[in-house]
Amino acid sequence: MSRTYPMNGPVARTLELVGERWTLLILLEILKGSHRFADINGSLVGISPNLLSTRLKSLEENGVVERRFYSSHPPRAEYILTSKGHELGIVAGALAVWGSKYLADDISLLHSRCGERVDVIYYCDKCSGRVKRSQVKLS
Amino acid sequence: MSRTYPMNGPVARTLELVGERWTLLILLEILKGSHRFADINGSLVGISPNLLSTRLKSLEENGVVERRFYSSHPPRAEYILTSKGHELGIVAGALAVWGSKYLADDISLLHSRCGERVDVIYYCDKCSGRVKRSQVKLS
Repeated sequence: MSRTYPMNGPVARTLELVGERWTLLILLEILKGSHRFADINGSLVGISPNLLSTRLKSLEENGVVERRFYSSHPPRAEYILTSKGHELGIVAGALAVWGSKYLADDISLLHSRCGERVDVIYYCDKCSGRVKRSQVKLS
Repeated sequence: MSRTYPMNGPVARTLELVGERWTLLILLEILKGSHRFADINGSLVGISPNLLSTRLKSLEENGVVERRFYSSHPPRAEYILTSKGHELGIVAGALAVWGSKYLADDISLLHSRCGERVDVIYYCDKCSGRVKRSQVKLS
């Protein structure tokens, strides 16, 4: 992977993998259930097949997606998120929660059990609770 | 704001605002406490002053940052996140948590109270609890 940003730090490093145009939207389509190239391509209005192919290859090289063949004659592959890739879903979730609040308020992310809006927050497993940003430290 | 992606949906719309190169890193620097142009510029190795200026202007136009003058002779401004901008912090947080786990494992986000790693999750205020991705629906 080429270095897009000269600094270190986990945000800059992650953006090198997923910060390029279309990448997070491709991940989102796979998360939503599109696995075949043609389906992903069809869901993303405006992306060229060449660019989609480049992005998928890069995601595969970085261990975010895996390619699996579901037919050998002719060879046909589908794209599955690795567990590492699945865990990126919360990035798309955080973008979606913010966007649904401030930009596209006709769409909400709801908790299927109670019907209320879902939020994306810092959380501590050990304390089983919400963590304020002021209580998050980098170490 | 120009339309970067032809589709709607809150993720694509949010990426139009924050998906451009450097933008999330600029937000992160302001969140971390850099407010003056020279300080932000100094923290972001490799960004040109012109590009930083363009990005800050776009963030200001979109209500993510506010410019406040702290000196009038000579005019000197600092950049403050609006509440809308503050709420974008969790996007940087989600990128940081993932990056610290998979790419830069020398850095962690820790809960200052207990010292354990912090996670970023879906959460329901009404149910006061963690929400699985399978329980999040778009509506």
